[in-house]
Amino acid sequence: MGETSYKNRGMFLENMINESNTYYNSVDRCLIYKKPTPIKVLNVTYPNNRSHLIDKAVYSSISTLDYNGIYREKYIEFDAKECHSKTSFPLSNLKEHQFDHIKKVIKQKGIAFLIIMMNNEFYLLKGEDIIEFVNSNIKKSIDYEYIKIKGYKIIESYTPRLKYLDAVDSAYFKENI
Amino acid sequence: MGETSYKNRGMFLENMINESNTYYNSVDRCLIYKKPTPIKVLNVTYPNNRSHLIDKAVYSSISTLDYNGIYREKYIEFDAKECHSKTSFPLSNLKEHQFDHIKKVIKQKGIAFLIIMMNNEFYLLKGEDIIEFVNSNIKKSIDYEYIKIKGYKIIESYTPRLKYLDAVDSAYFKENI
Repeated sequence: MGETSYKNRGMFLENMINESNTYYNSVDRCLIYKKPTPIKVLNVTYPNNRSHLIDKAVYSSISTLDYNGIYREKYIEFDAKECHSKTSFPLSNLKEHQFDHIKKVIKQKGIAFLIIMMNNEFYLLKGEDIIEFVNSNIKKSIDYEYIKIKGYKIIESYTPRLKYLDAVDSAYFKENI
Repeated sequence: MGETSYKNRGMFLENMINESNTYYNSVDRCLIYKKPTPIKVLNVTYPNNRSHLIDKAVYSSISTLDYNGIYREKYIEFDAKECHSKTSFPLSNLKEHQFDHIKKVIKQKGIAFLIIMMNNEFYLLKGEDIIEFVNSNIKKSIDYEYIKIKGYKIIESYTPRLKYLDAVDSAYFKENI
């Protein structure tokens, strides 16, 4: 149980996005990849001159968001969050350095957002709207209502499994559509 | 000897670039990070409910370039290569999927290049010039002369240690300078 729950934590949404990116990248609609999971290597052994084996390491945390790349000539960075509460998205899901990173991407005029899975629905929530919420609320979680109103709904499909670039179009490229 | 040479392989230039990025990011000139080194996890144990230990893993290869981010509102991706030959840069240093990736970044109108350290000098070589060389030569290495002529020399400094964004300006933003 411990192993399975650890390994599968958040993997459902992640797999959907990875498959969507594989499709989107293959048709040259964008070039977006998941960054490798950061791992802190504590020991490496060398069974022979031509090989190595990491025999002690731990997962470490990342200060950026998990996905980045280029779309419509713009820099894009985002993270995927599965929310198990039906009523609100706990801000504890977003680490403080990730929140700061979103601000930095926006400052550089890049696009930063979260894809939130909640109540079996998928929403793109713009970094600007997350910052706005945090700045004007003392609550430690974002209400489902706020996400429904401010977020851009992402449609499920076959290829890609999540049509999240259509939501990016609605959120950031309205004048071009 | 085996351990040291493996660990330090290419780390001199990488450290210079990492320190330069720390400086550049801190003054908001850009937002560029090195991607985590991809590691293929082969086994994880759980000493207790709250911790994990990776006890079998190997370094794996990456199909993209090592560094990416945003600069002057543009998507940027590059790799750092230390070249130990004094006369030419062996194209075997650039994996085929990395070469393909450079083409894809350019196709999306992003900026892709290599930073090559050679003869104790540092050059930015544009992806376009690498593709041009490969398409018009049967040689398996790029002559030092070609790099000197086509490349943009990067100045060493104290902070940042490598003023590589100045070379990016010369190579890609000449009309704005």
